Amino acid sequence: SEEAKVEDYMPSLITKTPLEGRLLAIKMVRKTIGTIQRDPEIKQTVRKEYEDDPQLLMYAAELVAIEFRTIAIANKYWR
Amino acid sequence: SEEAKVEDYMPSLITKTPLEGRLLAIKMVRKTIGTIQRDPEIKQTVRKEYEDDPQLLMYAAELVAIEFRTIAIANKYWR
Amino acid sequence: SEEAKVEDYMPSLITKTPLEGRLLAIKMVRKTIGTIQRDPEIKQTVRKEYEDDPQLLMYAAELVAIEFRTIAIANKYWR
Amino acid sequence: SEEAKVEDYMPSLITKTPLEGRLLAIKMVRKTIGTIQRDPEIKQTVRKEYEDDPQLLMYAAELVAIEFRTIAIANKYWR
Amino acid sequence: SEEAKVEDYMPSLITKTPLEGRLLAIKMVRKTIGTIQRDPEIKQTVRKEYEDDPQLLMYAAELVAIEFRTIAIANKYWR
Amino acid sequence: SEEAKVEDYMPSLITKTPLEGRLLAIKMVRKTIGTIQRDPEIKQTVRKEYEDDPQLLMYAAELVAIEFRTIAIANKYWR
Repeated sequence: SEEAKVEDYMPSLITKTPLEGRLLAIKMVRKTIGTIQRDPEIKQTVRKEYEDDPQLLMYAAELVAIEFRTIAIANKYWR
Repeated sequence: SEEAKVEDYMPSLITKTPLEGRLLAIKMVRKTIGTIQRDPEIKQTVRKEYEDDPQLLMYAAELVAIEFRTIAIANKYWR
Repeated sequence: SEEAKVEDYMPSLITKTPLEGRLLAIKMVRKTIGTIQRDPEIKQTVRKEYEDDPQLLMYAAELVAIEFRTIAIANKYWR
Repeated sequence: SEEAKVEDYMPSLITKTPLEGRLLAIKMVRKTIGTIQRDPEIKQTVRKEYEDDPQLLMYAAELVAIEFRTIAIANKYWR
Repeated sequence: SEEAKVEDYMPSLITKTPLEGRLLAIKMVRKTIGTIQRDPEIKQTVRKEYEDDPQLLMYAAELVAIEFRTIAIANKYWR
Repeated sequence: SEEAKVEDYMPSLITKTPLEGRLLAIKMVRKTIGTIQRDPEIKQTVRKEYEDDPQLLMYAAELVAIEFRTIAIANKYWR
């Protein structure tokens, strides 16, 4: 099934610290874009385009912020 | 009714693992765009346009992130 | 009052299944745009413009995702 | 104070029905833009610009969706 | 510390009424943009640019809507 | 691991006051963009570009608003 081909990059949403949660959020964004666009060359050019574009950099940060909220709630804010 | 024509691509929001939830989110985004635009040719050209456009790729990832939050809450974060 | 002119397209947010909730979300988006812009001709040209524009198609899907979350929570995720 | 000048367009977030909640959301969006830009002439030209622009029409619908969620939660989804 | 330089524009998120919550949301958006860009002249030109631009006016309204949700929840919707 | 290289800029989401939470949100946005784009020169040019661009300034404020909500919930709104 489609699931088999996809590396399980998030066996769980639970992390020990907020920072770990942040890195998981960044990984989820990267892996999702990787699932939508699998061609390594296209990914490379895409990466080059957004690297120095303020709007696209902020967009990447927004995606991280959205995923991070999900993880923060899952971890009860590491209270 | 309109419902009959639409394939039931999400009988439930409950999944066993976060990864399964992620794939359901990706499917929900694809199917919804498919409901809004049913013409296969237009869908094909649209797919080609966003495949190598950083902003549109990130937009697709944002839609997945929004749906994924709904699924994550439904599954109580697979805690 | 303004309310009288507006057809009641959502007497309730409760639906039997996730798919029904999805169709209600799509209807809410369509009716809301219809309330903001009532001129049928303008709506027709607007529809033609976004039909084959990847960013606008994804935007329509984002609006559905935002409304769907509200409906999913209202229905306790059809658990 | 600034508050005095502003008409109280939302004494309460509680409404009897989802439709009433929707109309309150539309009013909140309109009044907020009115608070940010008070000049009637500018508001008129702004209105004309977004009336037949698919992206701006969808943006107006997105603002309604965001406010509607807040109202729906406040009213416990009119369950 | 950085905190000292910043005027405390939100000692609390609690307000008596929804309208007061709305004005606090508008203030939070203004002050945050002010923290990110402190140069009064640049702020003035920025203000002129977005005043009659429908997309930017709506963007300002969206920021208010996002902050307002946080305040509405904090105040239990003034129920 | 990747985590070691990253300075732990958020050991906790808990802050004493809303303002402190606001400054943490601003720091989270800055550090995340810094993680995505580590090259100081590129960061400098990016900063110059968005400093006087209304849309990008508002985008930065939106990212702060999204992170702030997460922190506000984590701190139970400093009630």
